[in-house]
Amino acid sequence: MLPQALLTVIDEIGKLPGVGARTAERYAYHLLRANQTSNDKLANAITALHSGVKYCPVTFALIDASQDVSPLYSDDARDKTLVAVVEEPLDIIALERTGQYRGTYHVLGGAISPIDGIGPEQLHIPELIQRITSDEVVEIIIATNASVEGESTALFLQRQIENHGLKVKMSRLARGLPVGVDLEYADQITLTHALEGRRIL
Amino acid sequence: MLPQALLTVIDEIGKLPGVGARTAERYAYHLLRANQTSNDKLANAITALHSGVKYCPVTFALIDASQDVSPLYSDDARDKTLVAVVEEPLDIIALERTGQYRGTYHVLGGAISPIDGIGPEQLHIPELIQRITSDEVVEIIIATNASVEGESTALFLQRQIENHGLKVKMSRLARGLPVGVDLEYADQITLTHALEGRRIL
Repeated sequence: MLPQALLTVIDEIGKLPGVGARTAERYAYHLLRANQTSNDKLANAITALHSGVKYCPVTFALIDASQDVSPLYSDDARDKTLVAVVEEPLDIIALERTGQYRGTYHVLGGAISPIDGIGPEQLHIPELIQRITSDEVVEIIIATNASVEGESTALFLQRQIENHGLKVKMSRLARGLPVGVDLEYADQITLTHALEGRRIL
Repeated sequence: MLPQALLTVIDEIGKLPGVGARTAERYAYHLLRANQTSNDKLANAITALHSGVKYCPVTFALIDASQDVSPLYSDDARDKTLVAVVEEPLDIIALERTGQYRGTYHVLGGAISPIDGIGPEQLHIPELIQRITSDEVVEIIIATNASVEGESTALFLQRQIENHGLKVKMSRLARGLPVGVDLEYADQITLTHALEGRRIL
């Protein structure tokens, strides 16, 4: 019913996360109406992606293939004794967008999830333990996701650091009401967190 | 903050319809974790899209560059005297999915929309008028979208056919309640259509 070239694009673009058949059709049809130059730009960007990107050997953030370490780590203005531990590289972007954080980062590379076959040995925990000593880290902000996996990873990490006898302050991101949410629509757990973490004025 | 190669992909993939910054980041990150072979397949499919696809000169459906006319038109099992007029090529897929239609199609190539600068002269209406005569068309099913633009296009098309003095039956797709919708959630206009188009049992 559709030309093979279009079906191939629908098929390949449909492998992106959360893209169903209808969305893939819409994307492919958009590309069909776009000009060749802009499609070539997209295609070339996708082809060149892997060779242009690598992981920082210290923080495991994503960096340019030409860089040695993450600029957020090598920057002297960033406090190396303060480390925010995140699950994925893109979490760094989210924290940087706040404009409030002047420490460095450490990407675990995921969260402990037995259902997905991800155990603690696949996370960059040993490298963090080493960093705590070598960078004389004072505080670790455990900034994993507010999910079951994020919670277990945070707990595991906390125990690991304690087991290594490291004297480092550990903190977690605050849990509570997100901006703009009405109390009546907040779920029970969020509200419990908001109560427990209430701030005395 | 992010490697240039990744930013380029985020930028280019963010030009797809309805893809915001967060979604583009998620897609790009997925591609980063996918292997080079599968990324190359996607990139090649996008590059080859234009050269592999053309418009059928009779129905304006999308066809393989190697084909002369749409297989849905050249197929002898399809009734050429029955023509469903649709706005876009992908609308054909939607109608074919019903498995109920044995006629042929005519793609207008859009809908009249002054706000987008699309006037009737940009639609494949003259070609349809000609087909009505050459294929001795008996019925035209006007299957434009149930939007303001689709409605005006349908009305314009109907008048054009009448002005040409063509004796052809014209019909519109039924308007009414979609499957699975509760009366209380149906909007006023849909319910009005459902009342007007009620079927006597």
